[in-house]
Amino acid sequence: MTTPLRLALAQFDFPVGDLIGNADRITAYIAEARDIHGADLVVFPELTLSGYPPEDLLLRPSFLAECEAAVRHVAAAARGIVAVVGWPEAAGAVVYNAVSVLRDGAIATTYRKRDLPNYAVFDERRYFAVDPDGSACVFEVKDVPIGLLICQDLWGLEPLIETAAAGAQLVLVPNASPFERDKHAERDALLAERTRDTGVAIAYVNVVGGQDGIVFDGASLLANADGHVHPAAIAFEPHWLIADYDVENRTLLPVSWPIEGDESRDGLAWRAVVLGTRDYCRKNGFDRVWVGLSGGLDSAVVLAIAVDALGADRVTAVRLPSRYTAAVSNDLADEQCRAMGVRLMTLPIEEPFQGYLDALAPLFAQAPADATEENLQSRTRGALLMALANKFGGLLLTTGNKSEYAVGYTTIYGDMCGGYAPIKDLYKTEVSALARWRNAVAGAPVVPWGVIDRPPSAELRADQTDQDTLPPYDVLDAILFRSIDQEQSREEIVAAGFTPETVDHVLRLVRIGEWKRHQAAPGPKVSRRAFGRERRYPITDAWADTAE
Amino acid sequence: MTTPLRLALAQFDFPVGDLIGNADRITAYIAEARDIHGADLVVFPELTLSGYPPEDLLLRPSFLAECEAAVRHVAAAARGIVAVVGWPEAAGAVVYNAVSVLRDGAIATTYRKRDLPNYAVFDERRYFAVDPDGSACVFEVKDVPIGLLICQDLWGLEPLIETAAAGAQLVLVPNASPFERDKHAERDALLAERTRDTGVAIAYVNVVGGQDGIVFDGASLLANADGHVHPAAIAFEPHWLIADYDVENRTLLPVSWPIEGDESRDGLAWRAVVLGTRDYCRKNGFDRVWVGLSGGLDSAVVLAIAVDALGADRVTAVRLPSRYTAAVSNDLADEQCRAMGVRLMTLPIEEPFQGYLDALAPLFAQAPADATEENLQSRTRGALLMALANKFGGLLLTTGNKSEYAVGYTTIYGDMCGGYAPIKDLYKTEVSALARWRNAVAGAPVVPWGVIDRPPSAELRADQTDQDTLPPYDVLDAILFRSIDQEQSREEIVAAGFTPETVDHVLRLVRIGEWKRHQAAPGPKVSRRAFGRERRYPITDAWADTAE
Repeated sequence: MTTPLRLALAQFDFPVGDLIGNADRITAYIAEARDIHGADLVVFPELTLSGYPPEDLLLRPSFLAECEAAVRHVAAAARGIVAVVGWPEAAGAVVYNAVSVLRDGAIATTYRKRDLPNYAVFDERRYFAVDPDGSACVFEVKDVPIGLLICQDLWGLEPLIETAAAGAQLVLVPNASPFERDKHAERDALLAERTRDTGVAIAYVNVVGGQDGIVFDGASLLANADGHVHPAAIAFEPHWLIADYDVENRTLLPVSWPIEGDESRDGLAWRAVVLGTRDYCRKNGFDRVWVGLSGGLDSAVVLAIAVDALGADRVTAVRLPSRYTAAVSNDLADEQCRAMGVRLMTLPIEEPFQGYLDALAPLFAQAPADATEENLQSRTRGALLMALANKFGGLLLTTGNKSEYAVGYTTIYGDMCGGYAPIKDLYKTEVSALARWRNAVAGAPVVPWGVIDRPPSAELRADQTDQDTLPPYDVLDAILFRSIDQEQSREEIVAAGFTPETVDHVLRLVRIGEWKRHQAAPGPKVSRRAFGRERRYPITDAWADTAE
Repeated sequence: MTTPLRLALAQFDFPVGDLIGNADRITAYIAEARDIHGADLVVFPELTLSGYPPEDLLLRPSFLAECEAAVRHVAAAARGIVAVVGWPEAAGAVVYNAVSVLRDGAIATTYRKRDLPNYAVFDERRYFAVDPDGSACVFEVKDVPIGLLICQDLWGLEPLIETAAAGAQLVLVPNASPFERDKHAERDALLAERTRDTGVAIAYVNVVGGQDGIVFDGASLLANADGHVHPAAIAFEPHWLIADYDVENRTLLPVSWPIEGDESRDGLAWRAVVLGTRDYCRKNGFDRVWVGLSGGLDSAVVLAIAVDALGADRVTAVRLPSRYTAAVSNDLADEQCRAMGVRLMTLPIEEPFQGYLDALAPLFAQAPADATEENLQSRTRGALLMALANKFGGLLLTTGNKSEYAVGYTTIYGDMCGGYAPIKDLYKTEVSALARWRNAVAGAPVVPWGVIDRPPSAELRADQTDQDTLPPYDVLDAILFRSIDQEQSREEIVAAGFTPETVDHVLRLVRIGEWKRHQAAPGPKVSRRAFGRERRYPITDAWADTAE
């Protein structure tokens, strides 16, 4: 019986642009894989060296030159083991999304990605070329013929068929595949189908970590030639994943392969936004965050996310009461901070708000109060929160949810102030569900039930509730989901049973709110169609779907 | 002698998303071309029906279905003339960037773009497919064989060679080509070379109008088979352009072809930002604008742009003095408004600013004053200006220049407040040059010379000037231009004679300011590398060029 081939999959975080740091990480991981895990082969995720996505850094010749220098530096460490490392490979006037096989201190061979995604959050054709002479790449380790594909290459059948035809028995697939709800099942089904169709085994390694508006979830996979897919590795955690490839049976056997315990949809979404928030802070040098805590659901959930991301001692909550703030709002903020051990500050907005009203009084004398005064309250709060972050350091988190961003039920330069928006891609009803889920796993409430159960209100005038101007959130969110996430037409949405007036009202709000979304902070993608780089709408847009 | 073939090029504005309006426009223009201009052939710009660029509207099935209905509606009007109209053509699961030849009330033939730009501001591979069976498209009008290419198709040689080989004598090129400084000469040279190489004549029609961050300049072209390029048509103006194609001599002869009078670089840039501003307002329903007028250069230039764009009666300037505002600042603002006939309001910021200081005093007691207090002044101004726009309607223009956006010398949620940023893509030294140019063409000063000549200051503390924290603007802008517009490395910039400390300081500021640029308003592209959709950098970015 032959000894199996031992694989180490490096499901770790490789921050964007950190060429020197990533080269050091890769070098250290190569040594660990060889010396601690006894691996024959260590596989890193897509674009390991540059991180993913490097965006327009890829247009800088000096960046590309440093990438090349770094990969040669790393190659020198690949002795006594074979390492598969991703990097952007400049070749004359073009750049390839490449993985190189490093062995005996040098680059042995390089595979160039063939299927470049250019949809959703991906812009790979902006940067990368397809090698017209590119073909399958197969190399041998311990006499096992091993193929290489990169991420999207696996979604079409052709590249894998070619790789199998070139003799590969085992195919390695480095990935940078962002988290998206319900993608795991789709990915498992794909791997089962591809391995069954081609008779090769697949080791699929995904990066982990947050990068601006996306979060990579790891959850790497092994699939045998018979279509059996092993349970996904743990999501959202950097981890070594060790597996043996049995040469005779052509099967992959997990050796050290921590798997997902909690597979609830809400649990995955929660961990996605927590990791997105944690990594935005960590990678941008923020050791603490500020949250304006209103006593409402959104800020309470953002506070809970922040505490899970950074720990209670790195989070400061701020109450900013006005003449319209209910006593219960202040009490609930207090209750949550006590329960979570978070420092709470109170900063009434009355003085600067009144200062605005006084300054504007000569000009506004004739005009009735309207949204202007409401916006001023929100902007006063935003400026006060920014002042705290400016004076004492740290990042202000902004608390808008996807429903609010969709219909523009936010004040730009007011509650939209802040550098990161943890719940930006969660509709209000999803925020509520996550709060309940988080409370359930905590045992004791993290988000006070009083916050979850009270009617949503911006508290910018007396007796205001969100439903004064918006349809109930279950109706609103259903319409938004159909229009935004599913690209349904006005007619389709009406046919699904919503009243035409409500649908037209909502679609109009979405349309006229685009300018605010263009000036919004990034937040972690959870859905199939997140605002930001995944949904690119013109601001100047005369199109109104059908009857509006 | 044969009668010539009369062409009408429709150098007009076709707003994005305005399917119904554009169909009506096209229908009316077809009738005008036939009945008033006696044209045999009328040629519209790229994606006439949808406007350019429709962005993710192209992912909506209902939008695509309406495009198809609209093109059929338009086709019915094409009788007694041949019309060439651009539209996004959905065919099964893919969409083509197409132009259709409409004649006898129907679509006679359709050409599908082959070279899809996916760089700079372009994302065409996100939306469009290349037809694998696509080939040259040649049709006849009055026995003249006419070919079709779309925009970028002309930049490679192959598509034109194929079209000539298929028999075309005259090639029509509908375009949506955004204005960029110094592109005209490059384009003229291209047309000369292409026509000389292939022996075909070219009629090149470009759209005109502002669309968020880009401005289409028209400036359509005719080129004869011998490489002679006629002077470009007038830029930034919608206009009929009439030309005759002499069948025997195979030459294009302008019949009604208003050309560019002012060809100065500064003049073109000025008109670009004026049109961008005008069209942003017009297409988004703003009949007037607000400008915070500080007595400094940037806001003075923005005011002049606004007046040129909309007329003085649609512009309101607002002085927002503080304890740090020099008397001369107030005087200069007054002087400019009198000269331009603009209404000037004065709104001291002291009350709300003091309100902030008072509210924060218990928390800030131990802390020395720093940028926090400066930002609060800027945010107070931003909130007051937004309050005016909210209460009385209209759009707030924001006054930051490219140097400021580059190094983050702006207050987010403060002077960055506003929906459109007219000088966003002009470095400070360029703003100054444009002010001088504008004064020169006006005869009398539009921007007071006192504004142009005084040292730049944010006036956020006593005796402050920009050069307290930034290198002189000529040095700063030269470094920024090399780094941003030319992608030069730190080493290259230092080698060009700038001190390493200054270069490192500037590059660091550029890097850490990315989060603010992500929340910035759009403004018209003038340069080869404008902030916004043309320069896509990660916020979370550990890369520091070399020695920083």
